[in-house]
Amino acid sequence: MALDLNPLFGPWRDDTVGTMARGLQGSEILRIAAEIRELVAQGRQVCNLTVGDFSSREFPIPAVLGEGIAQALKAGETNYPPSDGMLALRQSVQRYYERALGLKYPLDSVLITAGARPIIYGVYRSVLDAGDTVVYPVPSWNNNHYAHMMGARSVEVKTDAEHGFMPTVEQLAPHLSQARLLCLCSPLNPTGTMISPEAMKAIGQRVVEENRQREARGARPLLVMYDHIYWTLTIGQSRHVTPVELVPELAPYTVFVDGVSKAFAATGLRVGWTVGPPSIISRMKDVLGHVGAWAPKAEQVAVARFLDDAPAVSAYLETMRRRVDERLTALHQGLSAMRAAGLPVLSIPPQGAIYLTARFELLGKAGLRTNTDIRKLLLEKAGFALVPFQAFGLMEDTGWFRLSVGAVSVEDIQAALPRVEAVLREVVK
Amino acid sequence: MALDLNPLFGPWRDDTVGTMARGLQGSEILRIAAEIRELVAQGRQVCNLTVGDFSSREFPIPAVLGEGIAQALKAGETNYPPSDGMLALRQSVQRYYERALGLKYPLDSVLITAGARPIIYGVYRSVLDAGDTVVYPVPSWNNNHYAHMMGARSVEVKTDAEHGFMPTVEQLAPHLSQARLLCLCSPLNPTGTMISPEAMKAIGQRVVEENRQREARGARPLLVMYDHIYWTLTIGQSRHVTPVELVPELAPYTVFVDGVSKAFAATGLRVGWTVGPPSIISRMKDVLGHVGAWAPKAEQVAVARFLDDAPAVSAYLETMRRRVDERLTALHQGLSAMRAAGLPVLSIPPQGAIYLTARFELLGKAGLRTNTDIRKLLLEKAGFALVPFQAFGLMEDTGWFRLSVGAVSVEDIQAALPRVEAVLREVVK
Repeated sequence: MALDLNPLFGPWRDDTVGTMARGLQGSEILRIAAEIRELVAQGRQVCNLTVGDFSSREFPIPAVLGEGIAQALKAGETNYPPSDGMLALRQSVQRYYERALGLKYPLDSVLITAGARPIIYGVYRSVLDAGDTVVYPVPSWNNNHYAHMMGARSVEVKTDAEHGFMPTVEQLAPHLSQARLLCLCSPLNPTGTMISPEAMKAIGQRVVEENRQREARGARPLLVMYDHIYWTLTIGQSRHVTPVELVPELAPYTVFVDGVSKAFAATGLRVGWTVGPPSIISRMKDVLGHVGAWAPKAEQVAVARFLDDAPAVSAYLETMRRRVDERLTALHQGLSAMRAAGLPVLSIPPQGAIYLTARFELLGKAGLRTNTDIRKLLLEKAGFALVPFQAFGLMEDTGWFRLSVGAVSVEDIQAALPRVEAVLREVVK
Repeated sequence: MALDLNPLFGPWRDDTVGTMARGLQGSEILRIAAEIRELVAQGRQVCNLTVGDFSSREFPIPAVLGEGIAQALKAGETNYPPSDGMLALRQSVQRYYERALGLKYPLDSVLITAGARPIIYGVYRSVLDAGDTVVYPVPSWNNNHYAHMMGARSVEVKTDAEHGFMPTVEQLAPHLSQARLLCLCSPLNPTGTMISPEAMKAIGQRVVEENRQREARGARPLLVMYDHIYWTLTIGQSRHVTPVELVPELAPYTVFVDGVSKAFAATGLRVGWTVGPPSIISRMKDVLGHVGAWAPKAEQVAVARFLDDAPAVSAYLETMRRRVDERLTALHQGLSAMRAAGLPVLSIPPQGAIYLTARFELLGKAGLRTNTDIRKLLLEKAGFALVPFQAFGLMEDTGWFRLSVGAVSVEDIQAALPRVEAVLREVVK
């Protein structure tokens, strides 16, 4: 007879946790997911564009990668990996960066983790002291939460649609002299836009200049976290650039965030990596070793083999890009056709990642006052599920939304567009 | 032609990371591992008792678990799991605790993570504010590092061999009124000893009493982290107990650390869980969600199925216990025979986990001044690799060592014992 502990917990209490945990905001995206689940349970058709993830039916992982994991398990790769990752995988990432990005790093520059998220946490946790300043553009993914967790001072630089929601050196420059960390991301979650080589180079040069001045007076340097987890997913003629290729002197100050999650539709495998200056990576290894965010061993073994198979990687990525492109293009063309027909919606041509950015210009119309009002209208009347930019740290109501295509088919999109059009026509009627 | 970044990194620099990361101590165990690798590379025979891990040749995971992961991958379980873990696994852990531990928790009490390490980090990170006091016995595993990472005030309670290196209520009581968190572990890493029901109950009652007083004056409660990751690995007549079964009123204050890593020799699968009061677990979920220490999805699916197969779990654990027991017993009997022959070594009868505790009473003999001297002597002359208690926060030189049997066979042990005996005879000669 088991001891029933349920009656012992009593009412919810918040005095059991610390200040940081109490102040942490819950995820807006998870709240929306719960609403969607409820509609689907009611039998409603929903085109779910909310999750920054893949459906494995639409985007299966490379077959050879799955088989490689099964083989590794059979071969007994079931005990601890080294805390910095399997040597074979670190070497394979090292070769991949040289081959695919033209960046030749020492082996000590590479650290493996359980997906890319722990790297972002690890950079914040290793680099910042409480009260240090971190500069990041908004909208961007979760920098606000990480800054809160560190007790860091956030400088949020608002970007605009005219620049594809990418920061410019003019916007960033006034804040850099006080900053300890600058966080950049391209292709950008949530917008699916990419930074131009010119903009990236100008920002990089400004950081190098700032660090020359700091070096001269013995001050701690400004570091750059470059999240390019979506770098292989570029659309059409878009070209991915790294700060380090454009401004090599940035190498001692730049930490990359990367992994298999998005490139190979493998978010559930939990294999990520960071590449950066050995002195920072070494400390991140110590910190993340204690945090315990290690990638599973069989997955590490299989990813190491797969990454070294350049033709297989290229073939998979080509298919992946084509399939992402089909979906983003269907969505963008559909919304653009509505705009051409005079309806109040605008989408930015997709460049990369799995996201489209669209503005539903409905604020003030038909009693719609907030992004949440718009989101609920589209969800409930059109079965069209989006995430407002508030989830990415831009707290004003602007009508801007992220549309993610990883879990839908082209047919899902085509089926949903007329429903959206009908709702827009109804609102402007 | 890739850009060679090696020349850009220059000398090692420490001004790129924050105060916490700079102050973090590297792992003693990893340093020892490097020495062992070097000896093995030289062709020397080493009985490696240093790693708190398994060799998959000596301790394979349950075959059905490995197959279950391969099946889940084939079935497309390759995208994100929910941030608190797969529902099926949370339910299966909930049933497992009811069935095997007699503890009936609500579903919201269960959170899945990438192994057990992130849970320990998550408890510290969620519960403590900088400057809060954490009480833990030494020797114990990594509490010193976690306390450093939080900027917490550590109260280290030194335990002794007479009590099997388990803390007593008398030792702990004077420190509890100032404490925010009390960390306990049984079966204990590093000693392989277990807390008695009486000692556990007395400590639990003292914590409940302390919390009654705090409740009355509106002060924040004292919490207990109970790491029982080795609870299924008990030797002979030893019986594992939990604070909650002995003192149910502790349930609102107790967080369990657990997972597949040790029970199923599956350290590389990265599936752990915590069970505790919903209000704490919910905050840990938010914190660890951002940290990103999620267990891989296919592994979660397969573990959920395996845990529900009570006969398979029992059969595997029985074999596991027998095989651990054989090794610990061989080691303990061998060292005890040396002691009976008048040699200066003492080992504590093993009770649980995969560890034996032994004291090499060699300080002051043959120029041996420190645990490190003893360790190096045994490694270099006897190919017998141990970890001194300094690696577990007991900084004095006491002659005490941890001997881990997860990566060796009974034959490895039998082969090494005569080499150890020869060294001891040489030292006392």
